[in-house]
Amino acid sequence: MPASPFDLVIRGGTVGTATGSFTADVGIRDGKVAAVGLGLGEGARTIDATGKLVLPGGIDSHTHIEQVSAGGLLNADTFESATTSAAFGGNTTVISFAAQHRGKDLRKVVDDYSVLAERGALIDYAFHLIVANPDEKTITKDLPELIREGHASVKIFMTYDLIKVDDEPLLDVLLTARENRAMVCVHAENHGMISWMGKRLVKKGYVAPKYHAISHPRGSEAEAFTRLIALSALIDQPIMIFHVSTAEGAQVVRDARAQGLKVFAETCPQYLFMTKHDLDKPGMEGAKWMCSPPPREAEDQDALWQALALGDLQTVTSDHAPYRFDETGKLSAGPNANFKTIANGLPGLEVRLPLLFDAMVSKGRPEFAGRGLDAFVSLTATQPASIYNLPGKGQIAPGYDADIAIWDPKKQVTITDELMHDLTGYTPFAGRSVTGWPETVLVRGREVVSGGTLAGKPGEGRWLKRTGGWAAEPTGKLTADMDPKRNFGAEVL
Amino acid sequence: MPASPFDLVIRGGTVGTATGSFTADVGIRDGKVAAVGLGLGEGARTIDATGKLVLPGGIDSHTHIEQVSAGGLLNADTFESATTSAAFGGNTTVISFAAQHRGKDLRKVVDDYSVLAERGALIDYAFHLIVANPDEKTITKDLPELIREGHASVKIFMTYDLIKVDDEPLLDVLLTARENRAMVCVHAENHGMISWMGKRLVKKGYVAPKYHAISHPRGSEAEAFTRLIALSALIDQPIMIFHVSTAEGAQVVRDARAQGLKVFAETCPQYLFMTKHDLDKPGMEGAKWMCSPPPREAEDQDALWQALALGDLQTVTSDHAPYRFDETGKLSAGPNANFKTIANGLPGLEVRLPLLFDAMVSKGRPEFAGRGLDAFVSLTATQPASIYNLPGKGQIAPGYDADIAIWDPKKQVTITDELMHDLTGYTPFAGRSVTGWPETVLVRGREVVSGGTLAGKPGEGRWLKRTGGWAAEPTGKLTADMDPKRNFGAEVL
Amino acid sequence: MPASPFDLVIRGGTVGTATGSFTADVGIRDGKVAAVGLGLGEGARTIDATGKLVLPGGIDSHTHIEQVSAGGLLNADTFESATTSAAFGGNTTVISFAAQHRGKDLRKVVDDYSVLAERGALIDYAFHLIVANPDEKTITKDLPELIREGHASVKIFMTYDLIKVDDEPLLDVLLTARENRAMVCVHAENHGMISWMGKRLVKKGYVAPKYHAISHPRGSEAEAFTRLIALSALIDQPIMIFHVSTAEGAQVVRDARAQGLKVFAETCPQYLFMTKHDLDKPGMEGAKWMCSPPPREAEDQDALWQALALGDLQTVTSDHAPYRFDETGKLSAGPNANFKTIANGLPGLEVRLPLLFDAMVSKGRPEFAGRGLDAFVSLTATQPASIYNLPGKGQIAPGYDADIAIWDPKKQVTITDELMHDLTGYTPFAGRSVTGWPETVLVRGREVVSGGTLAGKPGEGRWLKRTGGWAAEPTGKLTADMDPKRNFGAEVL
Amino acid sequence: MPASPFDLVIRGGTVGTATGSFTADVGIRDGKVAAVGLGLGEGARTIDATGKLVLPGGIDSHTHIEQVSAGGLLNADTFESATTSAAFGGNTTVISFAAQHRGKDLRKVVDDYSVLAERGALIDYAFHLIVANPDEKTITKDLPELIREGHASVKIFMTYDLIKVDDEPLLDVLLTARENRAMVCVHAENHGMISWMGKRLVKKGYVAPKYHAISHPRGSEAEAFTRLIALSALIDQPIMIFHVSTAEGAQVVRDARAQGLKVFAETCPQYLFMTKHDLDKPGMEGAKWMCSPPPREAEDQDALWQALALGDLQTVTSDHAPYRFDETGKLSAGPNANFKTIANGLPGLEVRLPLLFDAMVSKGRPEFAGRGLDAFVSLTATQPASIYNLPGKGQIAPGYDADIAIWDPKKQVTITDELMHDLTGYTPFAGRSVTGWPETVLVRGREVVSGGTLAGKPGEGRWLKRTGGWAAEPTGKLTADMDPKRNFGAEVL
Repeated sequence: MPASPFDLVIRGGTVGTATGSFTADVGIRDGKVAAVGLGLGEGARTIDATGKLVLPGGIDSHTHIEQVSAGGLLNADTFESATTSAAFGGNTTVISFAAQHRGKDLRKVVDDYSVLAERGALIDYAFHLIVANPDEKTITKDLPELIREGHASVKIFMTYDLIKVDDEPLLDVLLTARENRAMVCVHAENHGMISWMGKRLVKKGYVAPKYHAISHPRGSEAEAFTRLIALSALIDQPIMIFHVSTAEGAQVVRDARAQGLKVFAETCPQYLFMTKHDLDKPGMEGAKWMCSPPPREAEDQDALWQALALGDLQTVTSDHAPYRFDETGKLSAGPNANFKTIANGLPGLEVRLPLLFDAMVSKGRPEFAGRGLDAFVSLTATQPASIYNLPGKGQIAPGYDADIAIWDPKKQVTITDELMHDLTGYTPFAGRSVTGWPETVLVRGREVVSGGTLAGKPGEGRWLKRTGGWAAEPTGKLTADMDPKRNFGAEVL
Repeated sequence: MPASPFDLVIRGGTVGTATGSFTADVGIRDGKVAAVGLGLGEGARTIDATGKLVLPGGIDSHTHIEQVSAGGLLNADTFESATTSAAFGGNTTVISFAAQHRGKDLRKVVDDYSVLAERGALIDYAFHLIVANPDEKTITKDLPELIREGHASVKIFMTYDLIKVDDEPLLDVLLTARENRAMVCVHAENHGMISWMGKRLVKKGYVAPKYHAISHPRGSEAEAFTRLIALSALIDQPIMIFHVSTAEGAQVVRDARAQGLKVFAETCPQYLFMTKHDLDKPGMEGAKWMCSPPPREAEDQDALWQALALGDLQTVTSDHAPYRFDETGKLSAGPNANFKTIANGLPGLEVRLPLLFDAMVSKGRPEFAGRGLDAFVSLTATQPASIYNLPGKGQIAPGYDADIAIWDPKKQVTITDELMHDLTGYTPFAGRSVTGWPETVLVRGREVVSGGTLAGKPGEGRWLKRTGGWAAEPTGKLTADMDPKRNFGAEVL
Repeated sequence: MPASPFDLVIRGGTVGTATGSFTADVGIRDGKVAAVGLGLGEGARTIDATGKLVLPGGIDSHTHIEQVSAGGLLNADTFESATTSAAFGGNTTVISFAAQHRGKDLRKVVDDYSVLAERGALIDYAFHLIVANPDEKTITKDLPELIREGHASVKIFMTYDLIKVDDEPLLDVLLTARENRAMVCVHAENHGMISWMGKRLVKKGYVAPKYHAISHPRGSEAEAFTRLIALSALIDQPIMIFHVSTAEGAQVVRDARAQGLKVFAETCPQYLFMTKHDLDKPGMEGAKWMCSPPPREAEDQDALWQALALGDLQTVTSDHAPYRFDETGKLSAGPNANFKTIANGLPGLEVRLPLLFDAMVSKGRPEFAGRGLDAFVSLTATQPASIYNLPGKGQIAPGYDADIAIWDPKKQVTITDELMHDLTGYTPFAGRSVTGWPETVLVRGREVVSGGTLAGKPGEGRWLKRTGGWAAEPTGKLTADMDPKRNFGAEVL
Repeated sequence: MPASPFDLVIRGGTVGTATGSFTADVGIRDGKVAAVGLGLGEGARTIDATGKLVLPGGIDSHTHIEQVSAGGLLNADTFESATTSAAFGGNTTVISFAAQHRGKDLRKVVDDYSVLAERGALIDYAFHLIVANPDEKTITKDLPELIREGHASVKIFMTYDLIKVDDEPLLDVLLTARENRAMVCVHAENHGMISWMGKRLVKKGYVAPKYHAISHPRGSEAEAFTRLIALSALIDQPIMIFHVSTAEGAQVVRDARAQGLKVFAETCPQYLFMTKHDLDKPGMEGAKWMCSPPPREAEDQDALWQALALGDLQTVTSDHAPYRFDETGKLSAGPNANFKTIANGLPGLEVRLPLLFDAMVSKGRPEFAGRGLDAFVSLTATQPASIYNLPGKGQIAPGYDADIAIWDPKKQVTITDELMHDLTGYTPFAGRSVTGWPETVLVRGREVVSGGTLAGKPGEGRWLKRTGGWAAEPTGKLTADMDPKRNFGAEVL
């Protein structure tokens, strides 16, 4: 038996992993899991987890925090409010954005967001680098340096007038990512379709929030996915496709993976639990459910669940993008605005895990065939940690960070606006009842939420330095276009 | 028996149709086929076609004639030289382009080309309207009017800096076509991929003509097809995809058609008979084989033949785009130019039909299973006439124009530069031997080529006024995005 | 002008072909079309067809006539009654079956059916040879000889206990067909599924006729198609898949054709116009709608129309299988029989063409995009003649048999049992109204039906000697399994 | 700290899991893993695993042990020899067969095999029940009882004359499995194709062992998979497809899974490391590489690796089927036998894991993208334990059986016949060199192999009682054929 005792023992709970769960104690020392075992005895401190689930803390790898939109709109949350909300929702790590706007210096952007996060975060964090200004300096100097300094993921928008990156500069970004081993995450929708459709709807007087759902044609997703995959396949660069919303989109991802392409993808609770009909509310109320891409149909929900079960999608994130339902946020364009002028985005940091737990574990979505808890752990912790190469994160095992959420699997909660700890002021999931809720949340062995009460402090979260890892590694299989043997000897890459 | 005798009887030949061939005389009166029958007797004039094939004159629905490129380069042919060459190659109708450049007035463009064609053409002709300047006036006034005046087809480029039309204005063009019932023909390649790849190759010193083949990545075709189909499907507008060059591209077309979309497609001899290796010549010689998209691989040829046999592609055109191999054409950028500065395009009006006849009929490509002659007639005459709604064209039947080519199916010809009647000065097919050649060609009953000798005169060709016809008619099936019943009642179309 | 005048001129009608229609006279001499033209003048006899459609006579390539079922049940029709009915329905040729039962001599079978047909047929005919006893003599002697004598098509059942042919002997039949160049037509359903399902339904008391529809699971069709295609692909033998009923089945056919396999397929009016719900009638009434495979769903109808339009299915036949709705036919097992004991099969010879004409031409099914008449001619005459290599049949052109149906495209008819000329006593399509009906029908220039009145006589129909033709020719492309170059040199075929 | 110390501590190794590996000690108590942690201290006994990999013992879920073939041939191994060999190869559990022959009583069969295994096995074991005699008693009494007693998996052959089960009785077996919750494993090849091809090859004199590879046409696999899937989908019963050998087969599996069907599949080293060309040896030598299905082509190997990486195949088993290369085994039909008379099957228990380890971990197959060790653990231990619901097996975690293999990842071994511990006398993998070998193997905490020396005894292995588990649970989604709501109310299942 070891000379040094445990700092903390979580005793008697059911420890969940991506491949099964079992009763065991978890012994923690120096912020890390030191042992998982039966009868580990007492630590300096002991938490009784009998009847509880002891799960790896959630990782939310797609969140907008304290970010100014391209249009100049500040989102409702600070790093403090957002990570507080995240922690109450069972999360121990978030990946947020360092968002370059056109004409801005990427390094300066990263520095600014780092200051905000360092000061405010209660849980650990990393950044995806949004590149909206793919000029020479960004592409050849700042981006390579920042990736190598530990920011090994990039985010690109294929739509939105002010920040979209066209196909040719997107290839530049992909190549830079390839040369420096970073994941490239993409908001992939066809800009032309959306722009055309929006103008046409508005022109014809279809201006209510619900028409937002229509203004992003279904086909704009599969189209952009297909194009993005063609671009990334050309130069053999792995990609992560954000927020898949349609069955057709999921199918495009599946087909790409079948060809051995390194295409990863996520979806979000808004696509699993909402439909476009949620936007069909009187007056401006529908604006609360506006996000991009919009929620789709019930059939799409089924297809997305199936895609998660098949492994075609690997993560479920919140895409937390909080705008208050007032003149500072959703209604900034006034009470009679048309849907094109209303901010897109929903809060979701706090409810993501309970919604998924309820569906996958408590209600037992059939796609997971009785292994809902394994899949929940995998999709919300193990896989995001692995794909984004988060050091020491994603599972409860010796040597890993003691990032743990202790869940009461029987606790019934009705979601309300008041229950939320972020600053958005509403949640689009209000009124839903779920079974299962995280009660105590530890980051590196330190309680951030303790039995439902805040215990952490701003500034305790740490930045996670990341290299690209296995997921960002090219496959090494060159297409005919790029293979010198089939290419008149040209070494293009 | 009729009181009025035939002006001309073509006697004793084998008449070919898209669904079989048979021995019969063809009686012609007033420029039209009056009867097809056995023992029609003598006409005012009689041509003995014993042992010959009597086929509908070829229709070449994709040709660049007397056209100034976006870059300012005049092509080598006039309407006189081009239609002379076409006639010697067994053709009786061409569709050429009225090519708008950016900033130009579309009606003025059409008027100018009309003057040239009226003066020079020996055979009948029509225009596709190239829209490169989709401004308000073009879209809402000129284009609708011109379509309704009988120019019921539009051509769009998705690539080439100076003339490309992006997704959003492409939707405007598609909608205008829909509202006025015109076919939209598209040069569909991904502009970003090609631009990126070209710059990269040149930067790395891969500048020889052969690198042109590489600079259009294979995936740039399937990508653009997929995107174009998504755009046209959104608003239920039929399209014609020009010059399919890859197996993947053909598959995209096939999949779209399987969904009931009105997607038509063509390929060209350069994709059926050439590969990228034809560009691999010393010095600038390879420039003679440069066209866009470039020729691909032997496997693609097989896939394209299969796609023709399956009906996924409906026409084979020349994409005749003649540039002399000298400083007025291919070498205008000098003897050490890089491939990005060399004009794209090949002559092909005169050899298209003999090459196809040789492959499909004389050599009997197995894809056509012994019905090569039927397919030859269908692909080169009946189907283009039907799809582009050319009045009175495309078959030998009572009431149709007497547009007829009399072929010697046994004649062996080795193609040479000297044999050609266009002004390009070379043919990329020189040196190939074929069996089967058109000897006498009649347009509306009048001989343009008579036993291998020129018999027609400039100005005898007539413009063909065309409405959209069945092919340009929308299917009427609305997507979920456009169907008011599934769309919060929005009537977008 | 010809010395010999026409025996008959059909004047002023609209002549229909697979690629368009036009006003023309049709001149007939010696039973053949001598000319198609404008102003052909008077013949020895003249029929005025002004305002009428002059179409190639229908070819019904899948009919059961005067055939004893494997279970011993005689069908209701004689060759006289069946071909009379066929003629009234606009047909000029039928292909019926020479049906071997287990243990029977194939040559004897053919001889017997030949006697019956020769005596009774009013229109021309051929036989598919049903092989249900693939023993040594049948396979190596009788079948090869009969094929070479002009019976170049075989029919195989993959289901029905008494006549089904298992995979291994099916390969024997396919190889014999290949070596002698015959088409192999197949009733392809999974026997095990149907047998299992039927027993289970009956055991559980689900015995009404409507349960027949359920007893042939949808998947039993696509499964058997896939298996059949695998077998025929192994030895590169063309096949014709009979009566496709499901969307999935049509997709299997489409996929096979995309691979370049010579797979042909048909469907029937019962799958285009009926659903399984037609069987849901009180008492035994539903038995009138029982056929195998059963009608499916409305979605399947749409998929089949689409498959016809795409060319994946090439013919629409009646599968005429007439059993009276009394104790001699459908009710032979008594008024309380279970569905397993009720004869499968519907009459359809007479209504096939009017139903199709009404849907494709009068009502204009959108899949055919305004070319419904072309497609009608192609599917019901030109293509069956071509695929089954019926000499001189399938179109109105010089030298072809003058097999012609003159249709009144405006005539409105409500289908009733009484209207039918076969001996079944009912039609499952009774009560439907159609627009368009054949009024006069000529076989080899001789009127069989004249203005709605019978004019032909038994024995006037002739047997059509057929070689395999292009459709039955192997592709010549060997699979890896059969290619000596990839097969350790084994020459298996 | 716990009062009771560990019986055994494996100290300082790298513990491998399906989702990552980490340095940790493993503490064992009472045959089970008690703790995994850092610094667990000394146990009653301690094994130093520094520099070693501590992995879950291999589970080989497809092995033929002490089994009499349908043809009467005894395989070379006893449970003692086979499980000894398995243990030396890093395995701690095997699933073997209780093989019913036609006319035999299933319970008696199980009893007989149980006696043999109980007496001989050194490691733990379970049985798949081969049903070759699906008569009333087997289906309705013996099989349900045996499943419920803990034999929750069935094996069916779709080929081999003496044991094959046709489609209809296969549905009976599937339904019985469904009603009692058992997995159904299937050897799926098209019997007719193989029989036909074999006879034809032999008749033409192609009798050498290499022709065996040809005698199982590639298409016989995809065909049988498709059929099996159609059958199992009909009644919503999960299946496990054994030994996928072709790319097309893997694609069929993938497509089925995409539809949400519960289709599992395995492949074997012979399909990942051998090709048909391995059979091309002089004389009878090729017989050593004969197995069914036969090894295929290099392209198939790539496709199978890809399918493993995508999760379409979940296990890699040995299909150990040992026949000596002498007159007691492979050559029982004499030295001039034709390939149809030679026993099919290869030994593989001992080399399966080293071959996979070498490929996936040491050489780093690119499909696994740097996560080869995770995938190795998953495919060879975690997933088979999960799918076959082996209690307490498949991973190293608290409460699980201490079934552990300690690997030296650097050890280089050249495989030879002499190295093997089974009784076959040869290995088809002789001559291959691998890096990585298991040195010490523990079953329930007890060493069976200790540093390369045998330490276990016959009879120490235990039978594993298994219920069906999550994998054998139906999905609950009824097809249209089986859903009373769409099925005239028929409750078929």
